[in-house]
Amino acid sequence: MVNRPPGKRSLAPSHVYALLEPGPVVLLTTAYRGRANVMTQSWHTMIDFEPPIVGCVVSDRSFSFTFLRASGECVINVPSVRLAAQVVGCGNCSGRTVDKFARFGLTALPASRVQPPLIAECHASLECKVVDTRLVSKYDLFILEVVKAWTTPTKRPPRTIHHLGSGLFMVSGKTIRLPSRMR
Amino acid sequence: MVNRPPGKRSLAPSHVYALLEPGPVVLLTTAYRGRANVMTQSWHTMIDFEPPIVGCVVSDRSFSFTFLRASGECVINVPSVRLAAQVVGCGNCSGRTVDKFARFGLTALPASRVQPPLIAECHASLECKVVDTRLVSKYDLFILEVVKAWTTPTKRPPRTIHHLGSGLFMVSGKTIRLPSRMR
Repeated sequence: MVNRPPGKRSLAPSHVYALLEPGPVVLLTTAYRGRANVMTQSWHTMIDFEPPIVGCVVSDRSFSFTFLRASGECVINVPSVRLAAQVVGCGNCSGRTVDKFARFGLTALPASRVQPPLIAECHASLECKVVDTRLVSKYDLFILEVVKAWTTPTKRPPRTIHHLGSGLFMVSGKTIRLPSRMR
Repeated sequence: MVNRPPGKRSLAPSHVYALLEPGPVVLLTTAYRGRANVMTQSWHTMIDFEPPIVGCVVSDRSFSFTFLRASGECVINVPSVRLAAQVVGCGNCSGRTVDKFARFGLTALPASRVQPPLIAECHASLECKVVDTRLVSKYDLFILEVVKAWTTPTKRPPRTIHHLGSGLFMVSGKTIRLPSRMR
């Protein structure tokens, strides 16, 4: 049994893919030696359903790379469009010189299985451990296992944001149902 | 100089990321020994800008896996919501028993640098070669280099579709501009 962060609801591992597969911009938190950081990220993909495996590119020029490499842990937090200003702000500066939690008013909550914090304001948080580093040196590609997933109950489905490049973002639109036999 | 497929416009390598980063469902074409196939896919991520490197998960249970593994080539085609029925149809059957191009009325166009065809009805097509197979046996994850990219000029930005799981799809919504310094 793990501690439930305030306001969060546990999500079954088999449902994690539905959060990342549509391609949202995410906020990735890391921690090392008692210091936490957060970066904006959108180069990620699901790799397996259960346990949920995720591939995630973290540039070796980023401060988060150092933390992720050293600690082997991160949390992938999914923000809605209401956090768009903070998401872009986190992408425009480096944790080397800024405490981004303080600057952007993001609330760190203790995770249950890893050291990096959840972000309270995000509607989903995936606690991850690095399970494969074979493609890190060449591609900055980390293979992560989601060891615990949380969501925040919301009245309406949150609108996610999707990076189109050069300051343009797509906001998730209407949902349609099609007779898919895909999972 | 490569042959330009009819109706298509060449896209600079540095612009490719804007097509895949928002997470659209794509149609992946492969070919082997003169036979082409197409599968529906949405587990992919950008890995590098230029040359554009893409990570792509193709299940080893799929017919496309055999073709991709044997030929080392594929084309990632980006459909708009107008092709939603065909996209779902291609995901619901296997090329082992069906000629999906014929069944779903998809027009195969010769690519310029690889054997698998472009799909004329898709608004973007990325010709890819497999450049790293280290994570194929464990994760079905192929590392691809986009060797040539094509788009179809359209009056309005095409609405892409994004898989939410279990037959639910999000259609891309409005576009917003934010003061991002991210590429």
